[in-house]
Amino acid sequence: MYSTNLIGFILAVVSSAFIGSSFIIKKKGLQRASLNGSRASGGGYGYLLQPLWWLGMVTMIVGEIANFVAYVYAPAVLVTPLGALSIIVSAVLAHFMLNEKLQKMGMLGCLLCIVGSTVIVLHAPQEKPLSSVEEIWQLALQPAFLLYTASTIAVAFFLILYCAPRFGQTNILVYIGICSIIGSLTVMSIKAIGIAIRLTIEGADQFVQFQTWIFTMVAISCIITQLNYLNMALDTFNTAVVSPIYYALFTSFTILASAIMFKDYSGQSISSIASELCGFITVLSGTTVLHSTREPDPPVNTDLYSPLSPKVSWYIQGNGEPWKQKEEDGPPFNLITVIRQDHFK
Amino acid sequence: MYSTNLIGFILAVVSSAFIGSSFIIKKKGLQRASLNGSRASGGGYGYLLQPLWWLGMVTMIVGEIANFVAYVYAPAVLVTPLGALSIIVSAVLAHFMLNEKLQKMGMLGCLLCIVGSTVIVLHAPQEKPLSSVEEIWQLALQPAFLLYTASTIAVAFFLILYCAPRFGQTNILVYIGICSIIGSLTVMSIKAIGIAIRLTIEGADQFVQFQTWIFTMVAISCIITQLNYLNMALDTFNTAVVSPIYYALFTSFTILASAIMFKDYSGQSISSIASELCGFITVLSGTTVLHSTREPDPPVNTDLYSPLSPKVSWYIQGNGEPWKQKEEDGPPFNLITVIRQDHFK
Repeated sequence: MYSTNLIGFILAVVSSAFIGSSFIIKKKGLQRASLNGSRASGGGYGYLLQPLWWLGMVTMIVGEIANFVAYVYAPAVLVTPLGALSIIVSAVLAHFMLNEKLQKMGMLGCLLCIVGSTVIVLHAPQEKPLSSVEEIWQLALQPAFLLYTASTIAVAFFLILYCAPRFGQTNILVYIGICSIIGSLTVMSIKAIGIAIRLTIEGADQFVQFQTWIFTMVAISCIITQLNYLNMALDTFNTAVVSPIYYALFTSFTILASAIMFKDYSGQSISSIASELCGFITVLSGTTVLHSTREPDPPVNTDLYSPLSPKVSWYIQGNGEPWKQKEEDGPPFNLITVIRQDHFK
Repeated sequence: MYSTNLIGFILAVVSSAFIGSSFIIKKKGLQRASLNGSRASGGGYGYLLQPLWWLGMVTMIVGEIANFVAYVYAPAVLVTPLGALSIIVSAVLAHFMLNEKLQKMGMLGCLLCIVGSTVIVLHAPQEKPLSSVEEIWQLALQPAFLLYTASTIAVAFFLILYCAPRFGQTNILVYIGICSIIGSLTVMSIKAIGIAIRLTIEGADQFVQFQTWIFTMVAISCIITQLNYLNMALDTFNTAVVSPIYYALFTSFTILASAIMFKDYSGQSISSIASELCGFITVLSGTTVLHSTREPDPPVNTDLYSPLSPKVSWYIQGNGEPWKQKEEDGPPFNLITVIRQDHFK
């Protein structure tokens, strides 16, 4: 492994550890909030009074920042697939802290994620050094990448305007497709901003250049679009189904975008590229195996709710409505997990 | 991939295709035999009159020969793990020819076996060229390999004499352990014989040397021991449980023996060795996923047997005894699958 890749790798792993544990900490907070629910006057927002829930949010934000910085040091083809490690952290912590026992197949899923990630890390290409945002701007203006951008925007508009109203509620690929395609542009612009910040800290101010601000605007619009449709996907379909598909599509489009823009694979041997592809398929299979073992938690009616059953207690928000448990099911992967509408409802 | 490795790889894949399909052909033969069972006068041996059953046996022998020749051209660390591909061939053919539908998880298991095998193949070390059996003999007499041989024989005797009578029927690792440990010596001696045959064909007669005959005697004793205990394992425990454990142990010990004897990994990078290990774990996980989806076929009572249910009809051998279906469940991996007691009972 190359030395800059090593920094990116460590940051990506740290990020996954934080994001993975943030879900468990928040879930703990929600459990406590619902146990106190009848006494506290917080209504549906009781969990906002729980320090644990806020600790979980902070943990998640730290994780996302680490993920952001990881993109500065290592190619996206290394950082993005490692997002799957957060699932393992969640699953293992849930086993010990929430008594959601990991089954034999769940452990096999974790093992596959680790093994696949190892292969990806071992064969990830080294990033070409970049000395200015203008250089990244030139990379973004390459005909091949312009074609990629134009195609993704066209497909995204087609999905948003034509498919989403018609098939969005029935075909899981519509909302996830929008998120994943836009997500690949998010990562590319986030990476440009990250590099701009690094260069600025190193002394070469990049924020005087208009390109940095264009990347920032692209990043903000992409993140908002992505969050919107990710929420719609998670509100419509089961997290256990959404997560692996989202991981597969998001990672694939990001790798494709990065390969076109940064020419990650030029000079790489066929053997390295094939190994990395195999590693990616292994991680993907691991997430599928891991999620296949999770039984969907049934919705709980408050009237029937017993505070003696902590496993489901966090569903319930004192206001009598069954809490639509979604985001605590497990992380739907980095960078796009910061803000969920549920957090504020 | 190296050119001699390519020959070994192709032979190993061909071998898996033959061995994998042989199980399906034999099963078809057994199905037909049991359909004709009441009319044919063959009794319990009705399947011996089925051309299909014999075709299956021939297919299997051809597969084992291809496997044997593969060991001549490529290192055992490449050939042995590829044995898992025969499971895929069996599962896919069973899906189309026997209507034993492959589930979603089964396909995932197949995918994992293929992906893991690819990683193994891409990172397999090249074999050092050998010019005489005496050279292999010298490799076998290295202190490290002598220590390995002495240890395996000691452990095998301990398992056979002490553990097998006490825990053999309850602990699955006893019989499988014996097979796997002895199996690693089988592969090493088989490889020596194969190279001797190749050199003899090339003009340098190796059968005038006593070492070739020692290797032959070792191979024969090892194969007999191995077959005996593999049969005992399969008679005592479910094939779906035996197969992945046997695959894991047999492949691990073979890789270890080959690494010690042929110094496969000297000069290999840490990255290659780690990749190959990851590939092996992936294949192993794939076999576990694949076998986990197979429901154990319940034993069928002849009185209740209906010829309208071809799926279970081949259990029954006209003699009224429920056929202890074992070897048709799927291949328990190459080289040691040629002869099963069941074939002759």
